[in-house]
Amino acid sequence: MAIVTLTSDFGHRDAYVAILKATLLTLEPNINIIDISHEVEPANIAHGAFVIGSAYANFPKKTVHLIAVDSLGTPDNKFIAVEIDEHIFIGADNGLMSLISEFEPDRVVLISEGEKTSFPAKDILAAQAIKLSNGTALDDIGTEYLEMKKFLKRSVKANKEEIVGHVAHIDHFGNLITNILKRDFDILSKDKKYTIGIGKEYIYELNYSPSEVDAGDCFVLFNHMGLLEIGIKNGRADQLLGLEFDSPVWIKFNN
Amino acid sequence: MAIVTLTSDFGHRDAYVAILKATLLTLEPNINIIDISHEVEPANIAHGAFVIGSAYANFPKKTVHLIAVDSLGTPDNKFIAVEIDEHIFIGADNGLMSLISEFEPDRVVLISEGEKTSFPAKDILAAQAIKLSNGTALDDIGTEYLEMKKFLKRSVKANKEEIVGHVAHIDHFGNLITNILKRDFDILSKDKKYTIGIGKEYIYELNYSPSEVDAGDCFVLFNHMGLLEIGIKNGRADQLLGLEFDSPVWIKFNN
Amino acid sequence: MAIVTLTSDFGHRDAYVAILKATLLTLEPNINIIDISHEVEPANIAHGAFVIGSAYANFPKKTVHLIAVDSLGTPDNKFIAVEIDEHIFIGADNGLMSLISEFEPDRVVLISEGEKTSFPAKDILAAQAIKLSNGTALDDIGTEYLEMKKFLKRSVKANKEEIVGHVAHIDHFGNLITNILKRDFDILSKDKKYTIGIGKEYIYELNYSPSEVDAGDCFVLFNHMGLLEIGIKNGRADQLLGLEFDSPVWIKFNN
Repeated sequence: MAIVTLTSDFGHRDAYVAILKATLLTLEPNINIIDISHEVEPANIAHGAFVIGSAYANFPKKTVHLIAVDSLGTPDNKFIAVEIDEHIFIGADNGLMSLISEFEPDRVVLISEGEKTSFPAKDILAAQAIKLSNGTALDDIGTEYLEMKKFLKRSVKANKEEIVGHVAHIDHFGNLITNILKRDFDILSKDKKYTIGIGKEYIYELNYSPSEVDAGDCFVLFNHMGLLEIGIKNGRADQLLGLEFDSPVWIKFNN
Repeated sequence: MAIVTLTSDFGHRDAYVAILKATLLTLEPNINIIDISHEVEPANIAHGAFVIGSAYANFPKKTVHLIAVDSLGTPDNKFIAVEIDEHIFIGADNGLMSLISEFEPDRVVLISEGEKTSFPAKDILAAQAIKLSNGTALDDIGTEYLEMKKFLKRSVKANKEEIVGHVAHIDHFGNLITNILKRDFDILSKDKKYTIGIGKEYIYELNYSPSEVDAGDCFVLFNHMGLLEIGIKNGRADQLLGLEFDSPVWIKFNN
Repeated sequence: MAIVTLTSDFGHRDAYVAILKATLLTLEPNINIIDISHEVEPANIAHGAFVIGSAYANFPKKTVHLIAVDSLGTPDNKFIAVEIDEHIFIGADNGLMSLISEFEPDRVVLISEGEKTSFPAKDILAAQAIKLSNGTALDDIGTEYLEMKKFLKRSVKANKEEIVGHVAHIDHFGNLITNILKRDFDILSKDKKYTIGIGKEYIYELNYSPSEVDAGDCFVLFNHMGLLEIGIKNGRADQLLGLEFDSPVWIKFNN
């Protein structure tokens, strides 16, 4: 069965997710619908992009990812389908697509020029998602689109002396996930000692797993996404370290 | 695969939903179970009826909708299966069924006269839902029942001068969904200007989509259910407009 | 389709659950994944054990239950697969397994000696869960393990004069679920009157269903798990009775 994933800011209190699923299942009863998250903060594009960005690569190539975050759009908003890293993403042209991955999209098509509906995920995106999951090519559901809305990702400054990044996501456990990549760290840290600065804390050693520290202690590691992550074992790092979304985190290399 | 939907006030903290699913799957491994919502407020019949009422028509005809909201019943409560608009609903005879739809039920059967269990969704409703989803007729699982508990829906007053309705639901985004139907508005508004009154705000024009307004502005539209809905783009209309469940909303026609 | 259930403390805000599902589906597209709960309190072993313990017996025998609660472990933590009552549980050797059931495990195997990963549910448990769900024997995925970490369950004192137990779980509705078994009560209560003590309240009669009492009144019954449960109809017993996790509850028999 082909897979369609859903990421939205719909929450669990209403029937919006179920209405979307019913629409998908009516179009294609043999579809496997997997929820990524419906607890994205309302209209928070950065949050939505982080959630789908952290998950998509674990699904098989060609999976269709329907994204209904801030999906109502503005008058000039359009709906697009994007291919990145052999995955297909479909949603509003609100900038979220440009924040999902460090890769540039391989292709972007414009699906609709703003058909008027108060529920575009159901009325526009569902039908196109099913077509795409059935193997229809991107070019057959829209026209090439070169003006996709782009937001700059919070940049990481990396040189021989230091890497400076930011908190990109605070998860359910209160762990702080940064935009600092293991790949960059590995290149720059060769044979060097380092100091990691998190708020007022200095850390001199990376962990491999939270299992290395005791309850209440801080761990710093590169996580399953290859991103620097800071946590307090059995505690909330965001509260205990006083950091929030976008707070700076740095690594200095000592020669 | 036949579909059974689930709507409950069970929440996500405990295993109640999973126990219900396990019971359904043990009876019929080839059933497609779709969650509508499990975040209905405990025993809130109006909330439960709105949620299932907003969703059911998007599912294929003959879908079975198991409703476990206030499903424990009272000594004289009974469990019923109801056919409305070619959909089948099964749950407690607690009045919720009468609030799902503007249509009168086509048929109501009494399933059980209150078998004593503390978990009727699992012990009574699951087995009947599976039978119904397999095509068993309503008459084969119960006896005709003419005394279904009925609550009056909050009425809408509609005449040539005005329509007066109420807030019927506040959704996850803080949008206010009223019981005013587009169908009534279309008939009464012909060639007339109108004023929409929401708390202390007056609105003179309907939107087609929230995409027509700017962030922070109010939109008023007929939604995917054909109901008048009021929201604040990227804000919570309930808090910003000071309205709550049951607050009046009116449309006056100017000749 | 074989069933794998998931119980975790991952919450619904992030993509952790979806990443785990993607990993399972990539390994075995024909697997039926059922969520038990992802709202277990972070690292709360007693909560996790109660949730999976209340649910597992409703699934078919041989179901594989993947448990990702406090699953990061400590340096000496290991990952184990356990057979209890013909069900298979897989997770960290953190003591949770010993609290699931009153039955002793029939078999315990050690899967891994702490491979270093920050996401063992995905990197270690998923692959083993799929093997087990495909019928691989426990002995083929690990070696016999006699040192499983054991916690003593909160004990129940039961004799001819009284049963003294404790609140083992507070559910979504605020109902208090104790560790007092109907089986023990039935043996000891024969032909005797009894007094049930809950905080400052005395109760002299058991209910069969909450449907026997009026809104706002207290009900006391043996629930679907055979455990003594105390609730307030349409209210929160935890708040109204002032009881919490671990509070004592007793039954005295009058001769």
